[in-house]
Amino acid sequence: MTAAIARETYEPALLHVQYGQRTEARELRAFHEIADHYGVKHRLVTNLNHLKLIGGSSLTDADMDVADADLDAEGVPTSYVPFRNAHLLAIATSWAEVIGAKRIFIGAVEEDSSGYPDCRLSFMEAYNQLIALGTKPDTEIRIETPLIKMNKAEIVTRGFELDAPLSLTWSCYQESDKACGHCDSCGLRLRGFARAGQRDPIPYHDDADRDRYL
Amino acid sequence: MTAAIARETYEPALLHVQYGQRTEARELRAFHEIADHYGVKHRLVTNLNHLKLIGGSSLTDADMDVADADLDAEGVPTSYVPFRNAHLLAIATSWAEVIGAKRIFIGAVEEDSSGYPDCRLSFMEAYNQLIALGTKPDTEIRIETPLIKMNKAEIVTRGFELDAPLSLTWSCYQESDKACGHCDSCGLRLRGFARAGQRDPIPYHDDADRDRYL
Repeated sequence: MTAAIARETYEPALLHVQYGQRTEARELRAFHEIADHYGVKHRLVTNLNHLKLIGGSSLTDADMDVADADLDAEGVPTSYVPFRNAHLLAIATSWAEVIGAKRIFIGAVEEDSSGYPDCRLSFMEAYNQLIALGTKPDTEIRIETPLIKMNKAEIVTRGFELDAPLSLTWSCYQESDKACGHCDSCGLRLRGFARAGQRDPIPYHDDADRDRYL
Repeated sequence: MTAAIARETYEPALLHVQYGQRTEARELRAFHEIADHYGVKHRLVTNLNHLKLIGGSSLTDADMDVADADLDAEGVPTSYVPFRNAHLLAIATSWAEVIGAKRIFIGAVEEDSSGYPDCRLSFMEAYNQLIALGTKPDTEIRIETPLIKMNKAEIVTRGFELDAPLSLTWSCYQESDKACGHCDSCGLRLRGFARAGQRDPIPYHDDADRDRYL
């Protein structure tokens, strides 16, 4: 979705980062399929192995279970990967500085999301300050967060308007063949599609889960 | 030097990051020798391969030459690795959050140094703001920069006072056997020792270089 918005104005270069999450091979496939869909040649694929070494998240630590969706829960969920977006934005900033890109698009969502502290607009504003101070004086890199104040239903609706390839995307934290339908990310995704009056095109283990929020 | 200061107050855990710089094996050796010297068991060694993929620095790009020292030069030198310290601090922050550490020590030097934008106090203050916003609400992680306003001579003097193992440290950007004596980092180091009235204990290719600033 963020790529669909970015390419309306810019010629995108796409970054993918593996960090030892359970579904990393599936996410890499989604990355390349989306990049192919849009004909983006400029791609950077890298990894942050230390996020797995450091652990502390159910996404990267096989000894922790991925929790079932609890969309009304407050606080930071176990799927929080400590400070992850700071790493992703550091890579994007270094790359942008070298290739001369002026905007970094990230699909973080603050509202209607998982309560991750590094997905909030205030975090992104602080990061823009960091970029201004920590890069060469003549750089003009800024982070853009087109989705950050949207809820998932609005994002789905906008995705259909832009003809974004939602069938190529992957959100499930747990499974890579068919989506589990139970984790927090599946719950948020399915509720978003339901509220937008749309059916999610990706496969689920159990179609009853897909229709749970309809 | 920073480890010597940190251990006066805290029990340190030491992080080492390889990022494709020319002297990475030599720096890793220095890391372990210093950690052994202080009996630090808690160590994290990782790498940022993408900084080499991204390039843009004479330290990581074999096609760019490491410049000779020009200690009066202004602006950002070719040895600047784009936004490098943001990556190092992201790793340190994620690790600190998981192990419950409250302070991150980094040996950045703003004055009497190479003019890297990500070594300035203002950058570190912005990073502290980022940590406060981007980690769990109950974390209390702060960056400490004990050297940032010191010149190299003061750092050398303080190192001798603390009996820091300066003979185990490595600064040269170019060589790993004996220090080249010519790069910016050797120049700053040698001038610092000279102004502190001390002799640098590490080996140089040419002893005349070692004594250049005396």
